[in-house]
Amino acid sequence: MCTQCDDPRHVHHAAPPARRTILKAGLGLASASALAGTTASAQPAVPKAGRATQGPRTTRALGAAEAKGPLKALTIQRRAMGPNDVLLDVLYCGICHSDIHVARSDRARFPCVPGHEVVGRVQAVGSAVTRFKVGDVGGVGCMVGSCGECTNCLADREQNCLKGTVFTYGAPDPAAGGYTFGGYSETMVVPERFVLRIPPGADLAATAPLLCAGVTTFSPLQHWEVSAGQRVGVVGLGGLGHIAVKLAVARRADVTVFTTSPGKVADSRRLGARHAVLSTDAAAMKEHAGTCDLLIATVPRTFDMRPFMDVLKLDGTLVNLGTLGALGSLDGLSMVIGRKSVAGSLIGGIAETQEMLDYCAARGIKADVEVVRAQDVNRAYDRIVNKDVRYRFVIDVASLKDAQG
Amino acid sequence: MCTQCDDPRHVHHAAPPARRTILKAGLGLASASALAGTTASAQPAVPKAGRATQGPRTTRALGAAEAKGPLKALTIQRRAMGPNDVLLDVLYCGICHSDIHVARSDRARFPCVPGHEVVGRVQAVGSAVTRFKVGDVGGVGCMVGSCGECTNCLADREQNCLKGTVFTYGAPDPAAGGYTFGGYSETMVVPERFVLRIPPGADLAATAPLLCAGVTTFSPLQHWEVSAGQRVGVVGLGGLGHIAVKLAVARRADVTVFTTSPGKVADSRRLGARHAVLSTDAAAMKEHAGTCDLLIATVPRTFDMRPFMDVLKLDGTLVNLGTLGALGSLDGLSMVIGRKSVAGSLIGGIAETQEMLDYCAARGIKADVEVVRAQDVNRAYDRIVNKDVRYRFVIDVASLKDAQG
Repeated sequence: MCTQCDDPRHVHHAAPPARRTILKAGLGLASASALAGTTASAQPAVPKAGRATQGPRTTRALGAAEAKGPLKALTIQRRAMGPNDVLLDVLYCGICHSDIHVARSDRARFPCVPGHEVVGRVQAVGSAVTRFKVGDVGGVGCMVGSCGECTNCLADREQNCLKGTVFTYGAPDPAAGGYTFGGYSETMVVPERFVLRIPPGADLAATAPLLCAGVTTFSPLQHWEVSAGQRVGVVGLGGLGHIAVKLAVARRADVTVFTTSPGKVADSRRLGARHAVLSTDAAAMKEHAGTCDLLIATVPRTFDMRPFMDVLKLDGTLVNLGTLGALGSLDGLSMVIGRKSVAGSLIGGIAETQEMLDYCAARGIKADVEVVRAQDVNRAYDRIVNKDVRYRFVIDVASLKDAQG
Repeated sequence: MCTQCDDPRHVHHAAPPARRTILKAGLGLASASALAGTTASAQPAVPKAGRATQGPRTTRALGAAEAKGPLKALTIQRRAMGPNDVLLDVLYCGICHSDIHVARSDRARFPCVPGHEVVGRVQAVGSAVTRFKVGDVGGVGCMVGSCGECTNCLADREQNCLKGTVFTYGAPDPAAGGYTFGGYSETMVVPERFVLRIPPGADLAATAPLLCAGVTTFSPLQHWEVSAGQRVGVVGLGGLGHIAVKLAVARRADVTVFTTSPGKVADSRRLGARHAVLSTDAAAMKEHAGTCDLLIATVPRTFDMRPFMDVLKLDGTLVNLGTLGALGSLDGLSMVIGRKSVAGSLIGGIAETQEMLDYCAARGIKADVEVVRAQDVNRAYDRIVNKDVRYRFVIDVASLKDAQG
């Protein structure tokens, strides 16, 4: 809890970090100097647990026990800590649209405990851990493991590990066997290399969504080198979209939101967009033809991409973040004539995720969140599907103790 | 005709050019110094026609008089020459797959005279023409006009003229009214700005296809900055594909051909490709997964792009040149995970086309052609559709005098 503002979502870091270490020494991480550690010395509420807690443990979680079942309280097992592991008491976990895809699918591994936008407090550290100590605040995103040795890992692309990225939930877990369980749980055991430092002063609930939605939108803006004055369109104003707007505005891009929700037009401007277009209005879409250098499409389903390709300038790119099934209709001729592209983009590597967190902290960028209790998550899922969230639900994980099994 | 080798397809330039002018003075054309002019002084066969030929004229052509009709000899009208125009006696015209699409479609404007891979001899020049003189050899590609003043024209992208590129055939003709007629004809009247200089010593029949197929494959290799050692895949080994292989090999890329024709595997290696893969062989495709930096897809129809996306490395791009209708199936997830792209690419601007011609001349790159007489063009069309050409048909336009109406 912040000792300065009484907001329970804030944590205050009174002193400079005791161990300023970089995330990946020797790998040329540009933002290494910004990776300030945190100390807990000024925070009376910080837990003191240490080595005694490093054995295997049961932990309370919220998950789907079976296909199509609702989320409910479960008890899961966390592995014993190894020397490089960090034990987190989870404080907040964002609800990503992909959590719903997985938890409500027939193909998930059950029990399924979603959650990959995690902020927690360090409860214990392994003997070889150097970057975290008990009481620090850490974040976990979409990954909790990779080989660390392949070409892609060495290029800071752990999400493309050639031996298989260990995703935060539902992935085969080489450390514990079985499948990984995500952040809708009271504790997590995560290798230090996959724990992000949460910059001092962060609003913890509103920072949690940055661990997935933040880096997913930050990464394409970096990769496609969006600069001041460029026109960026954001297709879909939801959890990813509203952060994409904030990040593009921070780069002083001229931002247009394309939404199917009339109610989000005014919100788009509040978030910093200059224009907001109802993408169902063909005439309005035509007015914006040929205007955008880059489109960040966050729509989490197949959609007709052709009207959006028309919005691109010559050489423009539509970056699809949300459609994971078949891509919607595309017209060869218009792409050929305008040398236009459709690209995909995933999250980012750990170094890029840390860079994003530091970037956002320096600029006060955070998600617009609605904090929900664990017992309300099924309803929150329904509201997300019905586009009734402004803009990200975050679970107050402390409430899990009261959730029904 | 070449005075040195007796090959009627060759033209010999005995002296240095009398008028070395650059294509677009002041626009920073990188290859300006290479744009050597030609003189006809050493060529006894050069025509002497001058101003007397500058009025409107009828000319013999080969075209479709009506939808679904065969190509046959027609008489068309060429406009009177303006001060900036060049009158060409057409020598050779390549047959592009798009000619067939247009001439055999229901949607073309009839009569339809295709042809946009044109090499001809200058028969007359307008009073303001500075870069060509009677007897020179010039080329015409896919464009014969643009405004010359818009942002895109000023950026050497006449193919994207904001007031409407005048394509070489079937386009509204602002100079003459009606629609443009292409290069399957004995003469053409073309603004000097759209006439390319054919470098000295060129094999004229084998150079003609470079005016479309050459620049269409050169441009993406330039734009995506293919460099030595990169792996480039060429999908489809036809008119475009075989030139793409030669151009990529010239950049010292490591080239793989993907073809559905077993008979083209050996040819791929002859053209310089290191690998040739039958794209219908799933196991062979799998062996090449994740190998290519860039794919140049020349397939002139909708096809399933997913197996080819799997062939790309992380961050790789499939450049579609041939599919002008709906793009074939694409999988969002694999593109997202690998940050892969599908792009379109058209021809290039006039400056880039000249750069390509000079580049090819300096390296001896030309098309593999089969020269056909005008009366055999319908059969040639059928053979192209049946993939029975190695690799480009070129019409010997002198034969038009014998073609039947």
